[in-house]
Amino acid sequence: MEPLSRGAALLGIDLGGTKIELALGDADGRPLRRRRRPTEPSGDPAADVARMADDARALLAEGGVGQGDPCAVGVSVPGPFDPDTGTVLRPPNLPGWDAVPLRAWLGDALGRAVHLENDANAAALAEWRFGAGRGTRHLVYLTMSTGVGGGLVLDGRLYRGVRAGAGELGHLQLEWEGEPCSCGLRGCAEAYLGGASLARRLRAIAPAESRVAALAGGRERATARELVAAAREGDAFALAEMARYDHYLGRLVAAAVFAFAPEVVVLGTIPTAAGEALCFDPVRRQVAAHTWPHVAHDLRIVPAALGPERAAYAALAAAWEGARV
Amino acid sequence: MEPLSRGAALLGIDLGGTKIELALGDADGRPLRRRRRPTEPSGDPAADVARMADDARALLAEGGVGQGDPCAVGVSVPGPFDPDTGTVLRPPNLPGWDAVPLRAWLGDALGRAVHLENDANAAALAEWRFGAGRGTRHLVYLTMSTGVGGGLVLDGRLYRGVRAGAGELGHLQLEWEGEPCSCGLRGCAEAYLGGASLARRLRAIAPAESRVAALAGGRERATARELVAAAREGDAFALAEMARYDHYLGRLVAAAVFAFAPEVVVLGTIPTAAGEALCFDPVRRQVAAHTWPHVAHDLRIVPAALGPERAAYAALAAAWEGARV
Repeated sequence: MEPLSRGAALLGIDLGGTKIELALGDADGRPLRRRRRPTEPSGDPAADVARMADDARALLAEGGVGQGDPCAVGVSVPGPFDPDTGTVLRPPNLPGWDAVPLRAWLGDALGRAVHLENDANAAALAEWRFGAGRGTRHLVYLTMSTGVGGGLVLDGRLYRGVRAGAGELGHLQLEWEGEPCSCGLRGCAEAYLGGASLARRLRAIAPAESRVAALAGGRERATARELVAAAREGDAFALAEMARYDHYLGRLVAAAVFAFAPEVVVLGTIPTAAGEALCFDPVRRQVAAHTWPHVAHDLRIVPAALGPERAAYAALAAAWEGARV
Repeated sequence: MEPLSRGAALLGIDLGGTKIELALGDADGRPLRRRRRPTEPSGDPAADVARMADDARALLAEGGVGQGDPCAVGVSVPGPFDPDTGTVLRPPNLPGWDAVPLRAWLGDALGRAVHLENDANAAALAEWRFGAGRGTRHLVYLTMSTGVGGGLVLDGRLYRGVRAGAGELGHLQLEWEGEPCSCGLRGCAEAYLGGASLARRLRAIAPAESRVAALAGGRERATARELVAAAREGDAFALAEMARYDHYLGRLVAAAVFAFAPEVVVLGTIPTAAGEALCFDPVRRQVAAHTWPHVAHDLRIVPAALGPERAAYAALAAAWEGARV
């Protein structure tokens, strides 16, 4: 039988909070065909994993990948997991998932080796291979979505550290004993830069007459999205809040620069939405003022580049990494 | 001719501010014989390098290493250098040294390949291979001497980053716009933890009647050494200052833990002198309070272990690394 997707060699699954995206890719990790559906956790993780395996089998069949054809499987996992056992601990937005042996269950269901990767690590690898970090040797990736995730490519390889805990830059403490963080500590970068913290702050302090509140249809519904939109319109409150955001983001990036001496820092999600004038330029100035001239001179601070195919690339990067290790 | 030091395969040179130590070692980097002399910079770097080459030749001859015998040379360099060109920029305590092409000059003089390594990196490698980090995969080394240096072994390899700038943890900014640092920035860890900053502070604020001042023969001569000695005697001022020191050191280590997820953090110089009760126990408590329980549970925070042979091991580690790359 003629394969429908020539050269399909990797299957990636992005286990998102709202949707599950599956991608069949070539041996390099470029997406060939995709499939997605809402996550809709059933409350029964075994049933959720069985459904994920059904989707995977359907995509493999569509791609003409038979049972005997080699195809490495990778899953980009939100939240903490144990890389030794392949157990997903307690992913956000997946109720009922608590210590789910995803690697074993999915591997058994598919009859294939499955590699789990933290979603920020998978996205870092994807940006390094196909996005804003192409051609570099040392990359720091930071994503500011609900929380703040980090991924590290050092000397051309993903660096994970003990229990895959490296690059948890969302919990560098930018203010000692500062704002409470959802992790239980105080002053973490995530408490200033994560979307959930930011929304909480806007809902508490955005003036009722601000554009942030108007765009959100009431400040109690405000999120980073309305903040960015209002700042673009020149709203004074929004601009002040963006300046605060950029201040803390610059502090975080400066710390990452002294720690890792990367060639490039790739910033995803909220910064990418805010763009050059509202975010990247102020962050670069903050980093230049708080590192050394030759360091700032050599460093690139750039938006994530993969856009809407990000999840597919990240999931395939997890599969690629698994096939490589 | 029978070699005087069987298996001599590496020559390491530690270019210290007060002494130059040369060591001939086996292929693993264990010292076989050593030679040291005061640094005594002449003001003429070419003459200084020629003298260093004379010492190296003498040690090679003593060790029975002939011109044709393979022997990789490494130099542990204080302060900044350009790893691409092998040029030492402006090492502290070497007057007249400014952009000295040490790798080329010494390599030409000896007719051998020379590898330069930042002294903190060399010490990190040495602790990882023979000291407190033996058997680990991910190690962070921090040395608090005049300044604060850092070295990283990640996934079992030295990690340098761009221009060998990684692990510059002495310049993580622990207090935003805090104490001025000798690097020109403010609030750097080095401004709280480096020996020079600490001495400056003690000389400014140690009460004339404190044990610190008495032990130093006047507070204007106080250093970290007298602080530790006075704290050991129970002096109230010294204990309060050590608590401040441990507070900032704990903050620095916590940041390193979120960045690198190491198995072990090795602390050298001032902490090693202060010991368990005055430094390591309080630092471990601070780190436990400001990271996550499972992280703190897995982490070891330990004193550097190489002691008086540290410089020889570090210099040989630089040679070993050069031979390996």
